[in-house]
Amino acid sequence: MMLFESWTNSINLDLRETMTELELTDRSAYITWTQDIVRYRDLDPNGHVNNGAINQYFEDGRVHLRDERMVGLDENLLRGFAIKKFTAIYHAALSYPATVDIGSVVTRIGNSSFVLGQGVFDGERCIATADVISVFFDAGTGSSISLPDPVRAALESAQPKV
Amino acid sequence: MMLFESWTNSINLDLRETMTELELTDRSAYITWTQDIVRYRDLDPNGHVNNGAINQYFEDGRVHLRDERMVGLDENLLRGFAIKKFTAIYHAALSYPATVDIGSVVTRIGNSSFVLGQGVFDGERCIATADVISVFFDAGTGSSISLPDPVRAALESAQPKV
Amino acid sequence: MMLFESWTNSINLDLRETMTELELTDRSAYITWTQDIVRYRDLDPNGHVNNGAINQYFEDGRVHLRDERMVGLDENLLRGFAIKKFTAIYHAALSYPATVDIGSVVTRIGNSSFVLGQGVFDGERCIATADVISVFFDAGTGSSISLPDPVRAALESAQPKV
Amino acid sequence: MMLFESWTNSINLDLRETMTELELTDRSAYITWTQDIVRYRDLDPNGHVNNGAINQYFEDGRVHLRDERMVGLDENLLRGFAIKKFTAIYHAALSYPATVDIGSVVTRIGNSSFVLGQGVFDGERCIATADVISVFFDAGTGSSISLPDPVRAALESAQPKV
Repeated sequence: MMLFESWTNSINLDLRETMTELELTDRSAYITWTQDIVRYRDLDPNGHVNNGAINQYFEDGRVHLRDERMVGLDENLLRGFAIKKFTAIYHAALSYPATVDIGSVVTRIGNSSFVLGQGVFDGERCIATADVISVFFDAGTGSSISLPDPVRAALESAQPKV
Repeated sequence: MMLFESWTNSINLDLRETMTELELTDRSAYITWTQDIVRYRDLDPNGHVNNGAINQYFEDGRVHLRDERMVGLDENLLRGFAIKKFTAIYHAALSYPATVDIGSVVTRIGNSSFVLGQGVFDGERCIATADVISVFFDAGTGSSISLPDPVRAALESAQPKV
Repeated sequence: MMLFESWTNSINLDLRETMTELELTDRSAYITWTQDIVRYRDLDPNGHVNNGAINQYFEDGRVHLRDERMVGLDENLLRGFAIKKFTAIYHAALSYPATVDIGSVVTRIGNSSFVLGQGVFDGERCIATADVISVFFDAGTGSSISLPDPVRAALESAQPKV
Repeated sequence: MMLFESWTNSINLDLRETMTELELTDRSAYITWTQDIVRYRDLDPNGHVNNGAINQYFEDGRVHLRDERMVGLDENLLRGFAIKKFTAIYHAALSYPATVDIGSVVTRIGNSSFVLGQGVFDGERCIATADVISVFFDAGTGSSISLPDPVRAALESAQPKV
């Protein structure tokens, strides 16, 4: 499967900077929110929530953004996304039980890709932040293609308010 | 819990560059290897392995490195690590069933932190690569501390051969 | 590790019947409740929540019961439990997104073991029910031992109201 | 979704006994085998493999049986299965690292359902056994239907040898 291979070189042209300038540890940075409940199964042998569980919270933030902003779009449009690069910074340990808030904001829109800023919060405490680069591709050919207009409009609606 | 908070500013001083210059998509970059078997539960609704499952393979690569190179070290020494920053690039889609190889190599050693380069391979095909910054801290105070000599020696043994 | 082996024969003497007579598909059967939020990662390739994810909800119900009813008990007392037998019936498919309610009730208390009845609900719809036999053992010897009085009292507080 | 509801009453007629008479803790009981590698993420705060991870190994045993015995069958036939009842007995604790063997055998075939016996082994040590009742249904109507002949033949090929 050739998927992604051709993106590696083009991604830097498409998104000149990948880390956002927003302060992602600050709740005010985010446009849309969802929640997850920490599970016992999220815990590591050390008694803290495993980083992989925190990454699931980020994933739920992304799916929530898609469900909230892209409802009504052709299902085929939505299948065309794949995560190309995922960067997470873990700021603080998280315990069980807890309910976490996941904030998401679109920080950059390129020709065929976009960057999402995300944060996981336990109350006011920022547990982790992430920058996630997703690429839009043609499921048939596996090549990246320009963001369709309705997808671009949906992403723009989740950019920071000025 | 104050864990990690004080690291955010100091980490850049400790590790001036975080992305390695090794070509992590090339199997020859790695010093130590382990394996994982893809599970049905790793699959997403789209039928491909979820990125979070791939991140579990990276985790097993890290634990393998620790078990292989740091066996015999005081258990308390080993509890002092936490991942500070995790950066993954997803290069190709992975299907079920498969057995993957996970390669790891220490690419940089700072005063209290180090960087690991990792790759997940399905045969010769590189599925994903990662750069992982871990910090060593005092579990009592939550502050980062210098890497103890035996830990430093173990990390040096997993650096690229010149 | 010899853990559990000696229980296999004795468990049937300890708990003559393992399936409860309560109607576990009915919300009124339960004494204590907690919640979980369905995650995207819970989904199977067929788009429904995987049975293993539902089993995580059951686990959170059990941990909730312990945290709610046994708070203040010596930590060592609580480490002495292990699940011996887990029986789940899956009644209906579950989709994403959803928030589920997990009900738990102690249905039988033996000498060294007890049975928990559990149900996962999506609103009024019963998704799955479970009967879970746990055994209390001495962590040092691995042998089952009589339920300590404070544990027994806590379990009795979670039996059905008559 | 009405899926499953109508099965609850009919299942007992279809399968008069659900627990097998095979000694499932004995490796010789099984017809087909697959493997899983224990992951660090499988561990609980107590340092043992979580029951839910063991249930994933059982799932891989079932998918392996399907892939091995039903290859070439129409994809729509295979989508028609759902687990109705899952019963697991946990015999011994499992640690990391380990590679486990998962054995499966068809122990009973009814009109629209069948029972699978399964075992997870760490070498000669039996970690857990399971009895799993699956029902075949029409994806369109959600009603259970008779096992199609090619499915029945595949299941018969995985019954115990006499």
